[in-house]
Amino acid sequence: MELSKEDLVAAHDRTRAYIHRTPVLTSRYLDELAGGNIYFKCENFQKIGAFKIRGAMNAVLSLSKDKLEKGVATHSSGNHAQALAYAAREVGTRAFIVMPENSARVKVDAVKGYGAEINFCQPTLQAREEGLQAVIEKTGATLIHPFDDLKIIAGQSGVAKELIEDVPGLNNIIAPVGGGGLLSGTLLAVKHFSPKTKVYAAEPEGAADAVLSLRTGKIESAPYVDTIADGLRTNLGEKTFPIIQKLVEKIYTVSDKEIVDAMRLVYERLKIVIEPSSATTLALVLKHKEEFKNQKTGVIFSGGNVDLTDLARLFRNY
Amino acid sequence: MELSKEDLVAAHDRTRAYIHRTPVLTSRYLDELAGGNIYFKCENFQKIGAFKIRGAMNAVLSLSKDKLEKGVATHSSGNHAQALAYAAREVGTRAFIVMPENSARVKVDAVKGYGAEINFCQPTLQAREEGLQAVIEKTGATLIHPFDDLKIIAGQSGVAKELIEDVPGLNNIIAPVGGGGLLSGTLLAVKHFSPKTKVYAAEPEGAADAVLSLRTGKIESAPYVDTIADGLRTNLGEKTFPIIQKLVEKIYTVSDKEIVDAMRLVYERLKIVIEPSSATTLALVLKHKEEFKNQKTGVIFSGGNVDLTDLARLFRNY
Repeated sequence: MELSKEDLVAAHDRTRAYIHRTPVLTSRYLDELAGGNIYFKCENFQKIGAFKIRGAMNAVLSLSKDKLEKGVATHSSGNHAQALAYAAREVGTRAFIVMPENSARVKVDAVKGYGAEINFCQPTLQAREEGLQAVIEKTGATLIHPFDDLKIIAGQSGVAKELIEDVPGLNNIIAPVGGGGLLSGTLLAVKHFSPKTKVYAAEPEGAADAVLSLRTGKIESAPYVDTIADGLRTNLGEKTFPIIQKLVEKIYTVSDKEIVDAMRLVYERLKIVIEPSSATTLALVLKHKEEFKNQKTGVIFSGGNVDLTDLARLFRNY
Repeated sequence: MELSKEDLVAAHDRTRAYIHRTPVLTSRYLDELAGGNIYFKCENFQKIGAFKIRGAMNAVLSLSKDKLEKGVATHSSGNHAQALAYAAREVGTRAFIVMPENSARVKVDAVKGYGAEINFCQPTLQAREEGLQAVIEKTGATLIHPFDDLKIIAGQSGVAKELIEDVPGLNNIIAPVGGGGLLSGTLLAVKHFSPKTKVYAAEPEGAADAVLSLRTGKIESAPYVDTIADGLRTNLGEKTFPIIQKLVEKIYTVSDKEIVDAMRLVYERLKIVIEPSSATTLALVLKHKEEFKNQKTGVIFSGGNVDLTDLARLFRNY
């Protein structure tokens, strides 16, 4: 089953009252640098500081009353944990979040701040999944996967849908790819609302599972995982992979150095705070200028949740 | 002679096509923290990254044709240098900027990038003034002072004028104070467009000339100068001091630690890049919560030109 145009419209309408319609920024300087017109879709200004609230909100709002009463659950150390905690609070239900015990304190505090119940576990995927399974068995809560879920994908499609509405005639849209929720949503929004637009994906060199998966035709793990773009270290999923395989124009990798260089430009020129995962998209455009020259290109900034001490380290070391 | 309502309107109309009408941001989190409603006027998104372009543009656009032909000149190592260089280019004349030879390379590059002619000098006030005098004698260029000039003050008043137009019924506006150009402009805008609004000024503890000047009734130097808010190290001037003395509600000092704490909140919650001088205003509100509780307070962010390596150091050390 694939998501229809109506599914995407319904998801956007359903979540509209709970999310920001984020602004689209431009910069004459960056246009000159890229040799084309760039439109930055700023999900760093979104609720909880990242696009993830869109999918989480859509998933929670789509639950039956019975299911909603028992709450929602996930394992995550990142933006999805905050998103689900926030979404659950908005609809008046409980969120159970399984987090690795070595999660950054700032992220734990944010999830707690939204009123979620946290269960700590060992920092391994197995421990996370077992911890989650135990919570679900005990509470009857519904698992909300961070990306491999059609309700999540439909929610994330709102980013590109808004961008297409605000900037007609885009030649390209660039989205980052981690688990593929945002990228799948972007691809489906483009398919239904702006079929002539090409969608490119940006992936860190140090988490190159998606380029590899496209080449082999099945879901692969990255050859090695080592990147500052901590939101993009995940493999693709059963639901996101086929959509990406069918619709994406091209996936390009960018190095951590290229990511930090793009971040620096954004901080200095746009005067906004973005996280490393966000900067992959601008890095891609600047790395492949000839492909985007004299065109209108939408660049998605996925979020702005960066630890300021990490930031200091990044700008010093690259 | 004092600036009339008509002077301020004329300055705003004259410069409108050359500047951004900057956005006003809000944050539910920061409202809760402050116990009132805060409206952030974001001059970090202004052309050249700071409000200074408003005054420079108004000064340059107000010159006679004869004077304009000979160019404009100033000494500055900061945002005024960039502003004057940019303004001169916009109207097609030359800018001569005297800069201390130890100026940050990024600032020198920015001034050069706008096509100004730079004369380097020893990093003392005397050398700067002598260097400027020499340039003016040689070229016949008109001196544009960074703040102690009614055309500059009239230009800077646009910040508060726009804020008042966008957010009716403000109880307070907070501006930073260095030389007093922005503060004087803010005070005059409030006097003419929103006389019931109170204006407070934020000054770094390590550049406390303005609080001292108000106490003694004459222009004073700071007891010592040591602050990260590099835009606010200047003394008041002959034109700015009387306006401030007559109209300001109160000047409060804030420490460098309080400035960095406020910066951190802005980066983390508003996801925007501001320079230390900007953060003094939010720091003031959070330091004197009881005075702004349950009120509508406009907080001016003066600019966003911060060296990212300095930034790293700040967030690490405070």
